[in-house]
Amino acid sequence: MFDIFDKCVEESKKHVFRTQEELEARLGELQREMKAAGIPTMVVFEGWSASGKGSRISRLIYHLDPRGFKVHTMTKPSDEEKRYPVMHRYWQKLPSEGNIAIFDRSWYRCFDFVEGKKSKNDEELKIYNILDFESQLTAEGYLLVKIFLHISADEQKKRFNKLKSVKSTAWRIKKPDIKQNENYVKVYRMFCEMLDRTNTPNAPWHVVNTADGDAATAQVFSIVIEAMEQALEQKSRGLAINPAVFPVSAPVKPQVSVSLKDIDLAAAVADRSYKKRLKALQEQLFMLQNELYRRRIPLVIAYEGWDAAGKGGNIKRVAQALDPRGYEVIPISAPTEEERSHHFLWRFWRVLPKNGHTAIFDRSWYGRVMVERIEGFITEERKQQAYDEINRFEYSLTQFGTIVIKFWLHIDSDEQLVRFTARQNTPSKQWKITDEDWRNRAKWSEYEAAVDEMIAKTNTPNAPWIIIESNDKKYARLRTLEELIAIIEKRLSENDGMPPDYRS
Amino acid sequence: MFDIFDKCVEESKKHVFRTQEELEARLGELQREMKAAGIPTMVVFEGWSASGKGSRISRLIYHLDPRGFKVHTMTKPSDEEKRYPVMHRYWQKLPSEGNIAIFDRSWYRCFDFVEGKKSKNDEELKIYNILDFESQLTAEGYLLVKIFLHISADEQKKRFNKLKSVKSTAWRIKKPDIKQNENYVKVYRMFCEMLDRTNTPNAPWHVVNTADGDAATAQVFSIVIEAMEQALEQKSRGLAINPAVFPVSAPVKPQVSVSLKDIDLAAAVADRSYKKRLKALQEQLFMLQNELYRRRIPLVIAYEGWDAAGKGGNIKRVAQALDPRGYEVIPISAPTEEERSHHFLWRFWRVLPKNGHTAIFDRSWYGRVMVERIEGFITEERKQQAYDEINRFEYSLTQFGTIVIKFWLHIDSDEQLVRFTARQNTPSKQWKITDEDWRNRAKWSEYEAAVDEMIAKTNTPNAPWIIIESNDKKYARLRTLEELIAIIEKRLSENDGMPPDYRS
Repeated sequence: MFDIFDKCVEESKKHVFRTQEELEARLGELQREMKAAGIPTMVVFEGWSASGKGSRISRLIYHLDPRGFKVHTMTKPSDEEKRYPVMHRYWQKLPSEGNIAIFDRSWYRCFDFVEGKKSKNDEELKIYNILDFESQLTAEGYLLVKIFLHISADEQKKRFNKLKSVKSTAWRIKKPDIKQNENYVKVYRMFCEMLDRTNTPNAPWHVVNTADGDAATAQVFSIVIEAMEQALEQKSRGLAINPAVFPVSAPVKPQVSVSLKDIDLAAAVADRSYKKRLKALQEQLFMLQNELYRRRIPLVIAYEGWDAAGKGGNIKRVAQALDPRGYEVIPISAPTEEERSHHFLWRFWRVLPKNGHTAIFDRSWYGRVMVERIEGFITEERKQQAYDEINRFEYSLTQFGTIVIKFWLHIDSDEQLVRFTARQNTPSKQWKITDEDWRNRAKWSEYEAAVDEMIAKTNTPNAPWIIIESNDKKYARLRTLEELIAIIEKRLSENDGMPPDYRS
Repeated sequence: MFDIFDKCVEESKKHVFRTQEELEARLGELQREMKAAGIPTMVVFEGWSASGKGSRISRLIYHLDPRGFKVHTMTKPSDEEKRYPVMHRYWQKLPSEGNIAIFDRSWYRCFDFVEGKKSKNDEELKIYNILDFESQLTAEGYLLVKIFLHISADEQKKRFNKLKSVKSTAWRIKKPDIKQNENYVKVYRMFCEMLDRTNTPNAPWHVVNTADGDAATAQVFSIVIEAMEQALEQKSRGLAINPAVFPVSAPVKPQVSVSLKDIDLAAAVADRSYKKRLKALQEQLFMLQNELYRRRIPLVIAYEGWDAAGKGGNIKRVAQALDPRGYEVIPISAPTEEERSHHFLWRFWRVLPKNGHTAIFDRSWYGRVMVERIEGFITEERKQQAYDEINRFEYSLTQFGTIVIKFWLHIDSDEQLVRFTARQNTPSKQWKITDEDWRNRAKWSEYEAAVDEMIAKTNTPNAPWIIIESNDKKYARLRTLEELIAIIEKRLSENDGMPPDYRS
């Protein structure tokens, strides 16, 4: 069992301190080495009220090059932030490769140890979300250094009194702080449990007693330096930064799998009935969008499919039905340099819809297991890992109340050839077809196998794959609308509001 | 005098409509041409409640490539948004070169025509801010298309009743909407005045009557198409996109100018007194930071100066005094590709401090009139224009209540040589000196003249330049702290709170 005090003593014994000047010079060097090695670092400060997080951070950054780090102070989420899934605001703040993000309070904010415990169920969700987040990052090569600053009950009280005695600092001590001190023993046990359950090999906790400020500063420097040195050594030996990554699995499992070869593509719709039916479905969807907005339910639609399967036209028919104030079409192409220097899911977290809004992804995070794998940008092992990360990502969304729907627009190889040729021969459509489309077409069977596997691995009940037979474009559009309507209606009938929000 | 009805008739006569299909195809083509020409476009929709902004936007974007446009729905500013200067949230939403941003409500939101007029003074500020914003953008080559959607009082009432009759749309009609209808004639006059005063040659208003939806849609298409065609023609002839830009000047004028040659650099400080004095000043600054936080006053400090003048060390001494939760050091180097494809002030607007916070810029927007001009990235004419744009930018900040301080760290050429040589000969400091530093040094006299001019043109009383004699680094650090403290103390004694905020 984790005990703050024991861990304190253990940590302080571990570090043979150099002088403060030496520590600062070494950290400056390491910042440049980490930059060169392209390793992103996140340093988290948690701890008791008045344990000196601000001072430790001030000292830590004093000799860092400001071009390479950023301090994030995590206060209570704003109303705007609450419109996104819990971990959204932390994903926004990931450092890019070679940079350092320092957190004054962090995703551990969700543990509010003053007003008493929430229901057991929420506790488990909090732990899951934290482990999921940290394992996503460490698996992708982020270095996480978590530091808990400790002080005794007496020391805390003494510091509160000192702060209260000066007008310009008195406002910093608020009721919850006082309460924490009054309930010190109870909160101590809660902290122990929190630290214990999140003390993973990939993101271990370090506990530092700050009774002696200078010694604490030296210890913080040593911890960060040691972690960076280890990461650099691992990297120089061609190994993962984090040797052991804590395994986390989303509580959702993929269900029925299908093989594209088995899909019957004969379905078609007559021109006459199409227009009328389209209009009726669009009106229905428009009404449902209003209802989603009213109930603050976010909707994420991901489109994948063969080149020339008709994604653009299909998306248009859906978008046309919607109020433009409430949706956005997000086209996904090759990641930019900035996007490549972050976790691969970062760019999707950045553009999630707020609650009540809809995001339509024209291609999606599934590029990771399709084009990125087939073009050899990632290894087979990394791809297998990505399935799980994607399932967890989608679970984060649905756990927040988001409706997640994934469409695969399916055509056969013959139909694709017909469409490619037509594009090539129509001047006003030539811009739509590129050499890359032809190159991808040459890999049809490779992609086919990849899609089958992708569906088998990620067809979860909370975020299902729906295969839309698209040899007939009009049929495909109607079916897409019907599926959307059915799923939204089901969701609206099941649940009238959003799940409880445990953030603080 | 502007009359909505007259303008409506005039606009509708101007446009000989092609068929809707032709309009859509043409707009699609133009989107690609604007992309190729690198012209950013902003289309603004304002108008009466229920005048059909959403429907017009839906139709407009229906045939656009989603990779190139974005719809922004401007609702009331959130509490977070209110912590920044008024136009901050609009600057965030500038499209990059070749892209289109469509605004459903816009910076004209500040005119709230239901609850009656605000004080005359506020009105003037609103108009100034709008003219300033639009002229900043159009001077830099943005195409602005502003469309006001008009309906009669009877039509509005009819539409309200229709929306109210269906549950899923009834929530859209709120009290202010009803009030607008009740006060139709009064609001009509207010709209006329607003449109009149902001109907500039660079960003003229177009008024469209939406009683007939299809005709209105066609008219909107025609307006956007014509504006784009004009812009492309101007560009193809090597001319500015916006031939006439409305002249706006900040109500602040530069004051005393100085010549760097006249600065006496002999001042120095003894080692012994330095440490003690530094600590005392830092403690004073820390207290003032707390007070700024408490009163929600933002602080912007811009550092400029010769290479090796000691900016880094000086910034460190200031930063060391501050609580890291409340400040950020923002290093400015050459703009990234994304930054280059926006207005040159965009990247600074993005990183402004929220109220109560401090941003320290390590180099700043003055790069525009220094390195960018000397390296020939902009013309002399563009530079002269930039002075005015910078004064207006700083006025936007101070008008919001921000304290703006600009330091020029001054050393002489001999001292620079000594420092360059020392860096070159010290292994641990070699990374600090590059070939570029030597190249800049060769242009000393050019830079000297540029700095003198810069100070003469931008030394405004609200955002003063302070020249810090830095041949002695320690003296420079103490003086910087003293100046900061004096300015903050003066501001705190003058005004206890923030200026009134007129946003709605």
